[in-house]
Amino acid sequence: MPRPSRRRPPVIALLTDFGLSGHFVGAMKGVILQRLPDAHILDITHDIEPGRIRHGAFVLWAAAPSMPESTVIAAVIDPGVGTERKILMLKTRRHIFVAPDNGLLDLVRSDEPKAVTYVPDAKAVAKFALPGTSSTFHGRDIFAPLAATLAGGVTPAQLGKAHRLPPPVAWRATPGDPSVGASIMSIDRFGNLVTNIPIPPGSSPRDVIRMVVVGNIMVSHVVQSYADAPDNTPCLIRGSSGLLEIVVRNGSASTLLRAHDRTPVRVVWA
Amino acid sequence: MPRPSRRRPPVIALLTDFGLSGHFVGAMKGVILQRLPDAHILDITHDIEPGRIRHGAFVLWAAAPSMPESTVIAAVIDPGVGTERKILMLKTRRHIFVAPDNGLLDLVRSDEPKAVTYVPDAKAVAKFALPGTSSTFHGRDIFAPLAATLAGGVTPAQLGKAHRLPPPVAWRATPGDPSVGASIMSIDRFGNLVTNIPIPPGSSPRDVIRMVVVGNIMVSHVVQSYADAPDNTPCLIRGSSGLLEIVVRNGSASTLLRAHDRTPVRVVWA
Amino acid sequence: MPRPSRRRPPVIALLTDFGLSGHFVGAMKGVILQRLPDAHILDITHDIEPGRIRHGAFVLWAAAPSMPESTVIAAVIDPGVGTERKILMLKTRRHIFVAPDNGLLDLVRSDEPKAVTYVPDAKAVAKFALPGTSSTFHGRDIFAPLAATLAGGVTPAQLGKAHRLPPPVAWRATPGDPSVGASIMSIDRFGNLVTNIPIPPGSSPRDVIRMVVVGNIMVSHVVQSYADAPDNTPCLIRGSSGLLEIVVRNGSASTLLRAHDRTPVRVVWA
Repeated sequence: MPRPSRRRPPVIALLTDFGLSGHFVGAMKGVILQRLPDAHILDITHDIEPGRIRHGAFVLWAAAPSMPESTVIAAVIDPGVGTERKILMLKTRRHIFVAPDNGLLDLVRSDEPKAVTYVPDAKAVAKFALPGTSSTFHGRDIFAPLAATLAGGVTPAQLGKAHRLPPPVAWRATPGDPSVGASIMSIDRFGNLVTNIPIPPGSSPRDVIRMVVVGNIMVSHVVQSYADAPDNTPCLIRGSSGLLEIVVRNGSASTLLRAHDRTPVRVVWA
Repeated sequence: MPRPSRRRPPVIALLTDFGLSGHFVGAMKGVILQRLPDAHILDITHDIEPGRIRHGAFVLWAAAPSMPESTVIAAVIDPGVGTERKILMLKTRRHIFVAPDNGLLDLVRSDEPKAVTYVPDAKAVAKFALPGTSSTFHGRDIFAPLAATLAGGVTPAQLGKAHRLPPPVAWRATPGDPSVGASIMSIDRFGNLVTNIPIPPGSSPRDVIRMVVVGNIMVSHVVQSYADAPDNTPCLIRGSSGLLEIVVRNGSASTLLRAHDRTPVRVVWA
Repeated sequence: MPRPSRRRPPVIALLTDFGLSGHFVGAMKGVILQRLPDAHILDITHDIEPGRIRHGAFVLWAAAPSMPESTVIAAVIDPGVGTERKILMLKTRRHIFVAPDNGLLDLVRSDEPKAVTYVPDAKAVAKFALPGTSSTFHGRDIFAPLAATLAGGVTPAQLGKAHRLPPPVAWRATPGDPSVGASIMSIDRFGNLVTNIPIPPGSSPRDVIRMVVVGNIMVSHVVQSYADAPDNTPCLIRGSSGLLEIVVRNGSASTLLRAHDRTPVRVVWA
């Protein structure tokens, strides 16, 4: 029997493009602990390429379902730092996200039709932000203390007003919706190409598509696990986020197919 | 006087080849905290090169003695994910390891003759695994919840049956045992070459060997510390895990000797 | 209202040049948790280039103001490990630093005229150090247990004697002090060039300088935020640590100006 848990520290998860070689991430964590000493800080990643908001939005979407109930997820990819761009607090069914208003939350929002977005008002910001807020490092000066404030129990509604955003743009390629083309959302460390083609739970890629064409290479062999794939053969698999992936056993699909994240993808639906 | 510690949170240590740029490690940690909110999660490394089980086994072996008593150490380098490969729980004197059955625990096992290995039975897995377990990301779906379950106080024996593995293969090169050749186990960030030649505590490399030949370069100068080494001269030292290392002061032995982890090593014993 | 915090775990922050691909950082953390199970361990960075003490000193200086009150900050860039180099404990207004005596604390010390430096005496070291201390990995064997001891409530004065260091060398370039030339202290992940020219709080770079010349390129355009900068134009900004930075919108000043950390910088003061 699992022993009873004696405490449930508030969890704050971080995703940034700050990298790990400077003081940026450490500074954010220090500020969080100044404000909320018992926080459990969890890194999603800090290695999003600088300014690649779309990729950050994808990694955020992929990580979110694994975060504990009530996690505050602070996402800071923020080329507009220091301008009038808004700061968003997004209350979803299980989490609160904070992020600049630049599309970083778009993929998460697409799955959360009932989520409410708030913008903190100036008075609240003045209260929680670090004194002498810089114009270049809101991760430390605004997002970290905001995340600590929310993880400490303050609600988004107590800090600002609900704010209506334009509806998130659809991003999944499905047979029913020709408006969204197939594309590569992410290339993971193993060189797997993660597409925007959903494969429903319990389904095989075969149920959805006949083949995909990446660049000008056709991929149609479906496997259940990496190890099932023949050597040097790109294969299709349902990935762990429910999206179609193109994989190569003990190798890199990205290398074998010379594919990068803008390589065109065509689909022949089942 | 150290103040009395008020609590001893369960520690879970992670070693994977997932890298830090995707959502994988964050997802594992999120699942652990869902199941065991007061866990202290410690990263050994996530930067093992994809699929390099042998190197992962070495880093695991080197890190384990520093882990607190009762740490659950989850090691996930898992090219066989989604196949019938077994999941192992290894109960050693001080720790519990969980890992796929692919050799990742071999070096740890070689020092733990009395450790017992268990395999969780299907019913237990069904109970602790994430619903809708994927066939590509058992780190998140199986190993993370398993580690949380064990760190929460469930014993390996409660989850499955003892399982007899083949004895681990000897990996240390010693004068008494010509069956194991000398080799480079790891090249660290400083370019130090870590060999598989043990130097007993309190001994000098000089007590054990006369020289090593890396590629076709002889190394025989013994030093007590990096700073004792002459410039641009590869030297021998007893490393912090008790193995012979070849080092270069303010430089990289790997670069100077053009050595990689398959470069042949010959030993002239003392 | 923030809920009352139930506990304030002791915080230990780490900065090293160990990288994240080996077992080094994990081993330090394991030892800390053996000694102080409720410690909250915070990574500043482990990616300082091997042996680059000056850069480590800068990142330490930049991170320190964000660390919570009473944080013990262990900095280990230690090419002299295993020699007679001293171990320092620096008690500043808000923190305790531990580091080898090699200049790593110089920038922090320059802002802390009243800080007292201590050196642990041999008896104390023998008591807190790991048994069988290695001569190559004091991060694990000495600094980690020392940090845990201090974070657990032991004072530097209980472990050793005050030790007078030479006064720290001035490092900021100011109009009043021609003895320190302008230079690049750090190049961050975004390619921003961080100089050693302080811009006082509330001031604009324009109040302090007319232009800087990096290599042989003049930079004089001042902006308030990254997004205010014209495309492909290096601009001046007050950075988040109060130093002048040279930045390029959506690009890298380092690349555009072909600047590295030894590129000469000249200043025309206002």
